[in-house]
Amino acid sequence: MSITGNLYYNGTWQQGLGGTYQAGNPATGESLAPTMTMATRAQVVEAVAAAQEAFLIYKDSSLAERAKFLRECAKEIEALGEELLTRVSEETGYPLARAEGERNRTCGQLRMFADLVEGGSFLDPRIDTAQPDRKPAPKPDLRYLNQALGPVVVFGASNFPLAFSVAGGDTASALAAGCPVLVKGHSSHPGTSELVAQAMGRAAKNCKMPAGVFSLLMGSGAEVGSCLVEAPEVKAVGFTGSFAGGMALFKLANARPEPIPVFAEMGSVNPVFLLPGALKASAAALAKQFVVSLTMGTGQFCVNPGLVIAVDGPELDEFVAATAKELADVGAGVMLNERICSAYCGGLERYSAVAGVEMLAQGHAINVEEGFRAQASLLGTSAENFISNKQIHEEIFGPVSLLVRCKNDAQRLQVLAHLGGQLTGTIHCAPGELEGHRDLVDALTRKVGRLVINGFPTGVEVCPSMVHGGPFPASTDARFTSVGTAAIYRFLRAVCYQNFPEYLLPDALKNSNPLNLTRTINGQATKAVV
Amino acid sequence: MSITGNLYYNGTWQQGLGGTYQAGNPATGESLAPTMTMATRAQVVEAVAAAQEAFLIYKDSSLAERAKFLRECAKEIEALGEELLTRVSEETGYPLARAEGERNRTCGQLRMFADLVEGGSFLDPRIDTAQPDRKPAPKPDLRYLNQALGPVVVFGASNFPLAFSVAGGDTASALAAGCPVLVKGHSSHPGTSELVAQAMGRAAKNCKMPAGVFSLLMGSGAEVGSCLVEAPEVKAVGFTGSFAGGMALFKLANARPEPIPVFAEMGSVNPVFLLPGALKASAAALAKQFVVSLTMGTGQFCVNPGLVIAVDGPELDEFVAATAKELADVGAGVMLNERICSAYCGGLERYSAVAGVEMLAQGHAINVEEGFRAQASLLGTSAENFISNKQIHEEIFGPVSLLVRCKNDAQRLQVLAHLGGQLTGTIHCAPGELEGHRDLVDALTRKVGRLVINGFPTGVEVCPSMVHGGPFPASTDARFTSVGTAAIYRFLRAVCYQNFPEYLLPDALKNSNPLNLTRTINGQATKAVV
Repeated sequence: MSITGNLYYNGTWQQGLGGTYQAGNPATGESLAPTMTMATRAQVVEAVAAAQEAFLIYKDSSLAERAKFLRECAKEIEALGEELLTRVSEETGYPLARAEGERNRTCGQLRMFADLVEGGSFLDPRIDTAQPDRKPAPKPDLRYLNQALGPVVVFGASNFPLAFSVAGGDTASALAAGCPVLVKGHSSHPGTSELVAQAMGRAAKNCKMPAGVFSLLMGSGAEVGSCLVEAPEVKAVGFTGSFAGGMALFKLANARPEPIPVFAEMGSVNPVFLLPGALKASAAALAKQFVVSLTMGTGQFCVNPGLVIAVDGPELDEFVAATAKELADVGAGVMLNERICSAYCGGLERYSAVAGVEMLAQGHAINVEEGFRAQASLLGTSAENFISNKQIHEEIFGPVSLLVRCKNDAQRLQVLAHLGGQLTGTIHCAPGELEGHRDLVDALTRKVGRLVINGFPTGVEVCPSMVHGGPFPASTDARFTSVGTAAIYRFLRAVCYQNFPEYLLPDALKNSNPLNLTRTINGQATKAVV
Repeated sequence: MSITGNLYYNGTWQQGLGGTYQAGNPATGESLAPTMTMATRAQVVEAVAAAQEAFLIYKDSSLAERAKFLRECAKEIEALGEELLTRVSEETGYPLARAEGERNRTCGQLRMFADLVEGGSFLDPRIDTAQPDRKPAPKPDLRYLNQALGPVVVFGASNFPLAFSVAGGDTASALAAGCPVLVKGHSSHPGTSELVAQAMGRAAKNCKMPAGVFSLLMGSGAEVGSCLVEAPEVKAVGFTGSFAGGMALFKLANARPEPIPVFAEMGSVNPVFLLPGALKASAAALAKQFVVSLTMGTGQFCVNPGLVIAVDGPELDEFVAATAKELADVGAGVMLNERICSAYCGGLERYSAVAGVEMLAQGHAINVEEGFRAQASLLGTSAENFISNKQIHEEIFGPVSLLVRCKNDAQRLQVLAHLGGQLTGTIHCAPGELEGHRDLVDALTRKVGRLVINGFPTGVEVCPSMVHGGPFPASTDARFTSVGTAAIYRFLRAVCYQNFPEYLLPDALKNSNPLNLTRTINGQATKAVV
């Protein structure tokens, strides 16, 4: 196995005819072999046609076949072994342990969706039996079942080269739903993307899946990305990245002759509230955990704690001093690429230029010439200043947080009221302390997808209860999560069958319940036959 | 009780300050007393503020309280008695029996949602318990629960003055979800709207609901409608009506600083396929049922059978002859208003002007001067002609259907391939006949929200298995239905609680399961405590 720089579509590897580029190592700034190729619009059109052809077959794959395919994907990704982990590390600057953890998360996620598919609950089968004698009109036999939406386009994210990329959560949930996937790979980790696509291609072949069930296309967002989103056969889009990128796709998708849903997870500042009880009990310990969360992965998480809100006082000063002490030991971490690095530096400069914003503490200065690095930073400002300056509400992607000092509880609520929707909201408190702050809990709940008590937002668990999403602008659709089993609902639509002959009904709706599913029959959940 | 012409918001009746108008009786063309008033933008803003204030309370109402409120709404609507039915009939031209049936459907729907709310399944509660010793990182306690999205705007539809209007399916499902509702009433039945709003207001007061939980505003779409959709507090929109109207709202909602979902059900032509076996067995009986479905309610249903597709032959000729015979007995029915009537006449003229489209049969000509009436019609054309003329694919709202004659099965599939998304698709067939037409069933399934075998699409059952929606342009979001219990999912979003103290968790997620709900605990559905 080696990286060729080719694209994968219609079940074959093809050289991209839309130009070439080199991957880079952000730790050194050097180029990585081999030369990578980009798709033309004609190649995208061919890939989409193959995906549509695959859809007509793949949507009807049995739950067992689909689960087997997802497990085979995990197995083949694992079989890439060290080569994958090394390439991830080279292309991202992440240590090998992080690459390995993310690989395990990615494969675990594929297996979780395999289990979900086998269980069949996502089909939500419903049966309302006929009442031919009902007055004034007879009631027909009606049955309801979720179905695959159609080919789905997934945009790989720069910061999770495995878990939110080629075979990440969007891909796994779309394949689980019965939708072929067309991945627009991220140019920041093209070699990683190709290796994973090789594994996916092998898994598809091993499981005799139709050729277009999975594709990897590389190229610019303006060319390849927009061509994918505008293709009539494509029925939904998954995206994780910047607000600007997500909104561009959202607008493009809504301007199509047939608008389609875009599930863009666009990040947020993830406010962390430190209540007096928590600061009093453990300002130093809190600061330690905070700096770990803030600087992990050089702060390149959409759930990075970018905003800390607390009422002024000696304990808060103690927290700041302890944070400064912890930050003093933090080296300048490698960032994913030059663009992200310069956006980080630009963001710090922009924030620092706002009157009333001060630099409270920093990590090591950048003292090497090569590569793209970030100095971890804690900025501070007053609540008044924060409220009156919208430009310091925006996320700076990287290891920086802004501490907002409030005069009292009321001002803390005002700061919250001025925030947009968030992926997460966190409160640190002493036992029982929230009893007196139900207003804060309530207001925060209305702003976020996930509430965290006495923890930090980094670390997005993959499980049925996860919500990774949130009110706009954290995502384009607060009603859906991109992580966890519920992510599958983005790619399904229900169809109702009225007076359908038994032999034509999908297995999940047949009278005999051959799949042994729990179904809603005349309003009651049951495994009974009809 | 009497009709005042006022608006209802913030729990009180107010005269609209945005101008006045008269309701009309479409059967006579005469005006109906009293003078009705329209809202100003300032009144809309006040109503929305009250709805937002109500949201903060209503979202936390218990399941029992919410169910009681929905049942009280049904009771108060029933208590309007004859006055309501008479006014419906006067404002719509529908016979009293239709008004009564629709009233019963509306109240039944409110009670269905009350039952759904009490059952609590729509909350989809999930719990993943902590694993503090897990390596490499401990797993936190995570819990997941659906919550109300926020205030919802509902646009009343002209053709269902009760079931898709003030207290119709959109309103019932939004209230069930915990969302206050602001109704933009339809100018075609303002008196009906006011009477129902009076009942809703009484129900809210009886149940001590917050003042802004329900509002009725009348006025133009350009003024009142757009002001409602653009209000920042509003989080979703429900609409049933024309493609142009739905798309205008969809665009408006997506152009907001914070885009919000619009669930617009925009109608369709609802193709009906007549297979040879069905025609052979019962061309005359089929024609009889077809004409009943076509002309019911003067054809003013979004699921009206506007397109019939069949392979040419003597049995099809027999069907056409029998349809002509049935139509000859159909009087010119009253349409809902002047605009709909002239759009119907214009549509017929437009279709007839297309070369190759012929008038095959008609009902009684319009032989009275007063009111707005429609002559039921069956048009015919060839498959080639249909495929090459996009302008005869559009819905004409009213009692008209276009018969498309195909040369063979392949051409029938071609006609289907050229259709956009549909609310329903129907196939008439002999027993076992579909075995040889799985390609037709499959292609039709991909185009529609509901498949009907050996029936007609009119008659939308209100039950858990119903899907009233479908791929674009039948609706703006194929993933949701506007009828049936699943309609509630349009107005919910999940929130994840991480390491939340028991005393602050919503009841549905508490360890002791005080609401006795079925919950997904560590991936398994159970009523167990944690």
